[in-house]
Amino acid sequence: MPRPLTLNEDRLFPSDPATRAVARRLYGEVKTLPIISPHGHTDPEWFATNAAFSDATSLLLAPDHYLYRMLYSQGLALEELGVPSRLGGSQTDGRAAWRLFAANQHLFRGTPSAIWLAHVFSDVFGFDVALDAQTADLYFDQIGEALVTAAFRPRALFDRFNIELLATTESPSDDLQHHKAIRASDWKGRVVTAYRPDPVIDAEHEDFQSSLARFGDLTGQDVRTWAGYLQAHRMRRAAFAAMGATSTDHGHPTAATADLSPIQAEALFDKIVSGRFTPVEAELFRAQMLTEMAAMSLEDGLVMQIHPGSFRNHNARLFASHGRDRGADIPTPTGYVRDLKPLLDRFGNEAGLTLIVFTLDETAYSRELAPLAGHYPALRLGPAWWFHDSPEGMRRFREQTTETAGFYNTVGFNDDTRAFLSIPARHDMARRVDCGFLAKLVVEHRLAEDEASEVASDLAYNLAKQAYRL
Amino acid sequence: MPRPLTLNEDRLFPSDPATRAVARRLYGEVKTLPIISPHGHTDPEWFATNAAFSDATSLLLAPDHYLYRMLYSQGLALEELGVPSRLGGSQTDGRAAWRLFAANQHLFRGTPSAIWLAHVFSDVFGFDVALDAQTADLYFDQIGEALVTAAFRPRALFDRFNIELLATTESPSDDLQHHKAIRASDWKGRVVTAYRPDPVIDAEHEDFQSSLARFGDLTGQDVRTWAGYLQAHRMRRAAFAAMGATSTDHGHPTAATADLSPIQAEALFDKIVSGRFTPVEAELFRAQMLTEMAAMSLEDGLVMQIHPGSFRNHNARLFASHGRDRGADIPTPTGYVRDLKPLLDRFGNEAGLTLIVFTLDETAYSRELAPLAGHYPALRLGPAWWFHDSPEGMRRFREQTTETAGFYNTVGFNDDTRAFLSIPARHDMARRVDCGFLAKLVVEHRLAEDEASEVASDLAYNLAKQAYRL
Amino acid sequence: MPRPLTLNEDRLFPSDPATRAVARRLYGEVKTLPIISPHGHTDPEWFATNAAFSDATSLLLAPDHYLYRMLYSQGLALEELGVPSRLGGSQTDGRAAWRLFAANQHLFRGTPSAIWLAHVFSDVFGFDVALDAQTADLYFDQIGEALVTAAFRPRALFDRFNIELLATTESPSDDLQHHKAIRASDWKGRVVTAYRPDPVIDAEHEDFQSSLARFGDLTGQDVRTWAGYLQAHRMRRAAFAAMGATSTDHGHPTAATADLSPIQAEALFDKIVSGRFTPVEAELFRAQMLTEMAAMSLEDGLVMQIHPGSFRNHNARLFASHGRDRGADIPTPTGYVRDLKPLLDRFGNEAGLTLIVFTLDETAYSRELAPLAGHYPALRLGPAWWFHDSPEGMRRFREQTTETAGFYNTVGFNDDTRAFLSIPARHDMARRVDCGFLAKLVVEHRLAEDEASEVASDLAYNLAKQAYRL
Repeated sequence: MPRPLTLNEDRLFPSDPATRAVARRLYGEVKTLPIISPHGHTDPEWFATNAAFSDATSLLLAPDHYLYRMLYSQGLALEELGVPSRLGGSQTDGRAAWRLFAANQHLFRGTPSAIWLAHVFSDVFGFDVALDAQTADLYFDQIGEALVTAAFRPRALFDRFNIELLATTESPSDDLQHHKAIRASDWKGRVVTAYRPDPVIDAEHEDFQSSLARFGDLTGQDVRTWAGYLQAHRMRRAAFAAMGATSTDHGHPTAATADLSPIQAEALFDKIVSGRFTPVEAELFRAQMLTEMAAMSLEDGLVMQIHPGSFRNHNARLFASHGRDRGADIPTPTGYVRDLKPLLDRFGNEAGLTLIVFTLDETAYSRELAPLAGHYPALRLGPAWWFHDSPEGMRRFREQTTETAGFYNTVGFNDDTRAFLSIPARHDMARRVDCGFLAKLVVEHRLAEDEASEVASDLAYNLAKQAYRL
Repeated sequence: MPRPLTLNEDRLFPSDPATRAVARRLYGEVKTLPIISPHGHTDPEWFATNAAFSDATSLLLAPDHYLYRMLYSQGLALEELGVPSRLGGSQTDGRAAWRLFAANQHLFRGTPSAIWLAHVFSDVFGFDVALDAQTADLYFDQIGEALVTAAFRPRALFDRFNIELLATTESPSDDLQHHKAIRASDWKGRVVTAYRPDPVIDAEHEDFQSSLARFGDLTGQDVRTWAGYLQAHRMRRAAFAAMGATSTDHGHPTAATADLSPIQAEALFDKIVSGRFTPVEAELFRAQMLTEMAAMSLEDGLVMQIHPGSFRNHNARLFASHGRDRGADIPTPTGYVRDLKPLLDRFGNEAGLTLIVFTLDETAYSRELAPLAGHYPALRLGPAWWFHDSPEGMRRFREQTTETAGFYNTVGFNDDTRAFLSIPARHDMARRVDCGFLAKLVVEHRLAEDEASEVASDLAYNLAKQAYRL
Repeated sequence: MPRPLTLNEDRLFPSDPATRAVARRLYGEVKTLPIISPHGHTDPEWFATNAAFSDATSLLLAPDHYLYRMLYSQGLALEELGVPSRLGGSQTDGRAAWRLFAANQHLFRGTPSAIWLAHVFSDVFGFDVALDAQTADLYFDQIGEALVTAAFRPRALFDRFNIELLATTESPSDDLQHHKAIRASDWKGRVVTAYRPDPVIDAEHEDFQSSLARFGDLTGQDVRTWAGYLQAHRMRRAAFAAMGATSTDHGHPTAATADLSPIQAEALFDKIVSGRFTPVEAELFRAQMLTEMAAMSLEDGLVMQIHPGSFRNHNARLFASHGRDRGADIPTPTGYVRDLKPLLDRFGNEAGLTLIVFTLDETAYSRELAPLAGHYPALRLGPAWWFHDSPEGMRRFREQTTETAGFYNTVGFNDDTRAFLSIPARHDMARRVDCGFLAKLVVEHRLAEDEASEVASDLAYNLAKQAYRL
């Protein structure tokens, strides 16, 4: 007999009855607020074309590195899981991959993936039995049948999910055709882009030279000169803003910033474009460009996000066979106090700039990030990110940042996901965990319940809108 | 209608009824113990002159960087908040500053400042409505009226707060006139000094040369020779001890110590006083001086405190306009294992030395500090400090140090504050959080309640007295 | 009147009644599972000779650095505690040492030692009064009387403790005579060895040259040549496997690995054996040897363990007087992402290799270790280790690793102890803490209870067996 699947109304709330009662009340007030998703990685083509998704494996498993990295860690091959390699799409039958996934659900016990999947299976698809080896085919078939219906087209799901705004992330060399198509359509869903210039800033990125060439083509600038390169950024930022962007995003290996003189910056740039640079120079250029981007943000009002500290493509063999973003990005110790100082020395006191900083190194929460955000007018703390976008991770974020930075130097929740169907699950988890945290403050008489209620709405909705200028 | 202000009797206790019941009982036994404040930054002039405090803003807001840094982080100017700049006192009307503060109380939700303020407002001033925009004037007026009464003079408050001993912190170049005046008076309050020689040890301090000159004047030593400089320290330490000091305090950027030969130390000193030194040499001199201070502590019995790891005056623009101690000191990663080794190699096995070490880098609690303090006879752990002097911060301190270092290698609570009126609130918070922690051990059968009761009194009172030799 | 000693049935479970009820049920299912102890430091001679232990001090206090380091940290001399020095056994009367220990039990409040001792005293020896100054002699006498009885011989205790397998740890230069004697005996207890080659790999170990000589003698290889040295490792690994070993263990100062070419490795080895090497070369050799060991593990199937990050013998004076392993090993910041990369680049994708990594630097749990173990097929996470083998330490381990690595990239519990009598207490603590953690997931509806029940058995028994290939 299959195991039942239900979503308990009290899930993720602390068990202590007094605390749970408060958490329930707080959550009741934010549960149905619209979703603001100011940072993520869904594909705008979905909403531009509104084409049906194809099957369970290619929708839910193959693109989700949270899922297949865990299976891979236990010895399953990516080829068996439908994950495309550098040679192209996997040859594996989607149903066979799904069965493997189903038979290994125990690996996800205690992980947020298990909670998100339960939400998607129960709430989005209506299953009432759990996924396992026995129900694998039932799931694969019923999901397949659902996906061809109108109700499961991307735009219908977007509307059903009560998403008020969804930001995607594009490279400067993207022509934004999908965003143009969305805007040109009669659909009213608000999907905006965000400016992610890493491919034209990170000289160590394998596509740097080709991205740069495309960057020049799109802007008509001579992007191999410093002035032309900066001007091209300004132009693409404006083009992104025209497609609704209110933010930029920077995924650097460290949080290093620099503040070179124009002459030094130009000389460095010349080395960078020449291809003859050292790793130290590539790092210095990334550092300098964060400060340049902050300067442009003060001009054009785009909110700036820094997502630092991931050692990308750590698994050399897997990078060779399958390329980037395959679950092998591993966090590293990340410093902010010295690294952000050059940028902060120039712009930290500007209340007109909003710089949202994230971390994968939790030791920085209480030691560096909360003290910095609790002082500098320009700084805000991004929510618990990536590996920490989880019940315990979010709880630690609040416990380690609130006492120094308060709630109002944080910016609400980011789902940061490419797994579109999990967006409601992720926001629901964040709201529940935040309400649980607030409830604890209430029952310990550290915050009045009416104040907690205001904070709950701010964390679930208002702060994201304000911080991202939506 | 204004929001009510009350202090719940169970505040800060865990919500679980069994745990809360034990916490209540433990707290009941320590609630009224006298306050020992062995380390802090109140102004001895208050107790020497016993002059009335002037108004709410200049007493509570303008000197408290916990409060104004949070307001500053949200874009309010220090000038509007009554915070003095390098040009002198703020021109802002105190009432206007207070209104701004009152209107932004939501920024402090979830912070210890909110809890301390509620205690001060309710317990010290007797308010029963919360501070907000509506009640700003009521607060400003009633606080102003109270402050001119005899009951709100510094000495009366000291007595009312049940303070058994309060230590202030002075520089070697301070003539201790206020401490002399306190001792010469007929008031029986016990206010002692502590020896904080940073200004004559840190060659990178902006006042180093002038402090050194005054240091020589006060001692009659040629403090530009190594022997005279050391002798001057001995003399000032003795003078401080005569004014009740039982401790020294050292606020260095790192925990680095050194153990140079006398010849090396003298050569280094010559560079330092000449003003021609590198940052590495300045750091080495600070490191050497910690070991010199430990040697003197073995002679004169003064307990030694190290408060390392703050990047002082991180905000360059604010330092230029407003000077030091303006809420822009940011913690950095701080190592102890290698840094303390030179000092510990010489004196770590001396049970006659007490060296109390603090941290702003919580990662050191379980990794370095608890193992070091759980081994070396000379070492003790200072309590959760500064950004961690908060419910969650104190809880993490106990959770991460107790299992390796026990309770008896810690030294009770330090309020470390310049906010005099918050001293009872801070000690009350520490007692409540410690009793909550102990209660958890009791209900999980990890500690018997009679033992927990002894520990509660030790943490609230006895350990501070013993460790600081009071 | 002496204080009572009892072991509460609910000890270490969360106090919240709903959570405790689930924890009780889960624990009820794993409580009596046999003990698998795949990594530890008991003395195989005990089981080879089955000689009676002598007295309380020499059995329980003198060999247990958890206990005497705490007493030492409060100013007691090791000589008074029966701890042997380099000059040989302590001259102290065992009873006098025991009395000192008994009179200072308050130092262990809140530590896991207190919980382990209570278990040993109550469950192994049957005491119903607590140890303190009053009961010191009662304890010393009754323990002494028990130890001469047949029921307290090592093999009888092993059987009574329900130990299915116990691994000890030996150096390559150990002739394994005790293991041979155990196997030759008619006793059925399963005691196996593990290969710990540090003394012949760490050129900075004070016994390196003599260990190397013995290594050559035992294998008949010319271990001063690179080829002979590697061959000697292969031979000793095989000899250890013949004595039941399924694992190797490596206790290095860092997690550094290297992947030199054979020519580079040989040149480095020549320097190492010559004794003319720099600290950097000694470190590089240790790093290279981890990769060599991994290569051999792929050949012979031995599971590989790395226990990095301890600064050994930090207390120079104590090392001079008392030698190593005297409670003065202090953790240091430990990186894994860059350090393990050379080894992982070669072998990380090999599902045939099992590499179990431990840490004393908890910051690596969520930042590095869980992401690495949640990706690489060869990697598994060892349990909370040494200073973290405690209720709070184990709880943090689960909270900080589970959401990224799941339960199935961890390997169950290791007691890692030389305190034989505490083995049941340690496993019981681990089972209780894990069941408490699982119960929290259940009552927060993050895991179904039937799944939690499976996980509880896996953590208590199955995972250790599987991971260590037992």
